[in-house]
Amino acid sequence: MSDDPSCAGPRVRMVPPGDDRERLVCPECRYVAYQNPLIVVGSVATWEDRILLCRRAIDPRTGFWTLPAGYMEERESTMEGAAREAWEEARARIAVDALLAVYDIPRISQVQLIFRARLLSPEIAPGPESLEVGLFRWDEIPWRELAFPTVLWALREHEARLGQTSFPPAVNPTPDALARWERML
Amino acid sequence: MSDDPSCAGPRVRMVPPGDDRERLVCPECRYVAYQNPLIVVGSVATWEDRILLCRRAIDPRTGFWTLPAGYMEERESTMEGAAREAWEEARARIAVDALLAVYDIPRISQVQLIFRARLLSPEIAPGPESLEVGLFRWDEIPWRELAFPTVLWALREHEARLGQTSFPPAVNPTPDALARWERML
Repeated sequence: MSDDPSCAGPRVRMVPPGDDRERLVCPECRYVAYQNPLIVVGSVATWEDRILLCRRAIDPRTGFWTLPAGYMEERESTMEGAAREAWEEARARIAVDALLAVYDIPRISQVQLIFRARLLSPEIAPGPESLEVGLFRWDEIPWRELAFPTVLWALREHEARLGQTSFPPAVNPTPDALARWERML
Repeated sequence: MSDDPSCAGPRVRMVPPGDDRERLVCPECRYVAYQNPLIVVGSVATWEDRILLCRRAIDPRTGFWTLPAGYMEERESTMEGAAREAWEEARARIAVDALLAVYDIPRISQVQLIFRARLLSPEIAPGPESLEVGLFRWDEIPWRELAFPTVLWALREHEARLGQTSFPPAVNPTPDALARWERML
């Protein structure tokens, strides 16, 4: 964006030259503010038979349980981002294993890349965005207090791949799978 | 971003409240311009034993050959994005099959999701960003005129998975794989 103080920023909707859809453009300096989908990176991270979950201290869904996950930052890899989020939200050191799931959330222009990971130690503590963090055995998971649908999806896909070392990542579940998982709640 | 004309846009580097790294902030309205990695979606799309490539009409790498790929747009899925790019760049209708590769390019804050796909017909034509498009048998591929390293990587990973229906996506190649592919050029 121009530093010219006569610019009031990208605010006019127009199709830039050579483009084929409307973007927000600054009419003074012609800067185009492209809006693109955001990548969320996260993990289903385990210590022995227990899974790391974080109770959210921030909106949306404060007080509900989630996987350590968040927006990927610039100049990091997807696996580095997943490890960073585990540290920021749960002070957990993890070794990322395999890509567990790729979830498309086009309604909010988000792509979630969820990895399978191992905790390097069971020492965890809440980061600033978590009220508390915990290691849950399968039957201890607070299924009815999960923050987002994709948390449920990733946990179920993780379960389906226990003991497997090589697998294609899960994608958004079919209506049948969703109905089956709903009945299990 | 505020429409207030007294705003000159995000231009001050500061750590916003509750954040932990510097962002560009508008000092008038406090709008934070987050910069996040961009997703590139594309495909290795085949018709029988031939692979679709596009000769670039735009910078960077004008005149070199690439896979149909480009920046994911808002409110589309990754597979829809890959299909849209095949149409825009090569007027090709494709059926996306499986996720072939996830490439991290942290230097330019880019994540590439490359799918395996089938052309629904061999009718193709250059879109506005292509000088020409073609369907290449393996030994006809212009290996020394590929536009980007990830084009070579994805083609080699596609070859390694011929006949497979279920596989984990490739990640950035090891130095050994890179050296082997270089010797093949």
